Amino acid sequence: MHRTKVRIVEDALDANNTIARANRDDFDRHGVTVVNLMSAPGAGKTTLLERVLAEPLDDVRVGVLEGDVQGSYDADRLASLHVPVTQLNTGAGFGGECHLDANMVRSALPALPLDEIDLLVIENVGNLVCPAEFHVGEDVRAMVCSVTEGEDKPLKYPLMFRSCELVVINKLDLLPHVDVDLDRLLYHLDAVHPGVQTVAVSARTGAGIDEVREWFAAVVSDRATVA
Amino acid sequence: MHRTKVRIVEDALDANNTIARANRDDFDRHGVTVVNLMSAPGAGKTTLLERVLAEPLDDVRVGVLEGDVQGSYDADRLASLHVPVTQLNTGAGFGGECHLDANMVRSALPALPLDEIDLLVIENVGNLVCPAEFHVGEDVRAMVCSVTEGEDKPLKYPLMFRSCELVVINKLDLLPHVDVDLDRLLYHLDAVHPGVQTVAVSARTGAGIDEVREWFAAVVSDRATVA
Repeated sequence: MHRTKVRIVEDALDANNTIARANRDDFDRHGVTVVNLMSAPGAGKTTLLERVLAEPLDDVRVGVLEGDVQGSYDADRLASLHVPVTQLNTGAGFGGECHLDANMVRSALPALPLDEIDLLVIENVGNLVCPAEFHVGEDVRAMVCSVTEGEDKPLKYPLMFRSCELVVINKLDLLPHVDVDLDRLLYHLDAVHPGVQTVAVSARTGAGIDEVREWFAAVVSDRATVA
Repeated sequence: MHRTKVRIVEDALDANNTIARANRDDFDRHGVTVVNLMSAPGAGKTTLLERVLAEPLDDVRVGVLEGDVQGSYDADRLASLHVPVTQLNTGAGFGGECHLDANMVRSALPALPLDEIDLLVIENVGNLVCPAEFHVGEDVRAMVCSVTEGEDKPLKYPLMFRSCELVVINKLDLLPHVDVDLDRLLYHLDAVHPGVQTVAVSARTGAGIDEVREWFAAVVSDRATVA
């Protein structure tokens, strides 16, 4: 008698994870490393990308997938950087969702020049809750947290801060003008995600940007070494 | 023959709106005016409330319903103001939702001292997308938009800006330190919500807060006049 052992894989029931894995397979097949970049609205994701991509990232060829509820304001800002930018709106066809999910990113795959890039940065919708709940096929996650948002954000949105490999603390130039203690913010971050890598920057002045550039380049080279 | 004309009311199918109307009926029965206060994370809703409620609001008795994914950090901050504060978390029992909906607020009704207040301020979860989509039984909506979030937010999150009767522009004290033109922000706001009432404030310094206090008091007295 032939017996088949059936393993129940819990998250096989989760359609989003299934599609995220399919995305990941496609990215892998094209040798593309994917970073899911998240933050609250106005924390500075696009300004950070403008700084990071202002000059070539070693020999890494970068593409950007811009997630927004509607419009292409950020994509237009990045268009001058001479990197391929693809706009993905959650408003048209996806019900105005507050986050990207794997199926939305899958719908954008045919528009992405996967053979011509090594790194895809997916700029998610500005939101500290739902984007953290949906894998889209990324290798790593990074987030931007502005000092103007207050010291308490890691405590109030722990899933987001916990799910990221890098937390960029932005708007460092405003620190003298706000009632925020950077050490206290980092203490709260460490409480929800002990040991997570952080970089403090001012995307406005450019301070700290080199370290973020090195992180992006390392994400690509680390992955190439593993593969 | 007795004929009954059946009217199909489209949004009767919308469970949220049905429950929001039930909430509204309960608030009406107790003579409570309800303001749904929304913003991005860290825009300053709680600091604004600390300022607005630091002194009695004429003879208006105020209560606060604090919406958060988890924790009671904001409620703890408001506890010193001697107004009744009720915490409503979307994380426990509601799947960590990124917004309040009518059913969540309904679940909090038994905990609210409706007979002892004239005005209930519902501080929604920090998010510029989904909170705008869910009525919770409020009379009016107000939002806080910080100048540090950039000039483009009304264009990127138009539903939120369009659904509010008052837009409080916060962190005016930081305006000299950011690359944001207030006129341009107001121009974008007017493009998505022509004629909406605005107040520019610094919840940190207290500038402009009197005007916000007057708005809250007027919301209550206007409603009393209508009723």
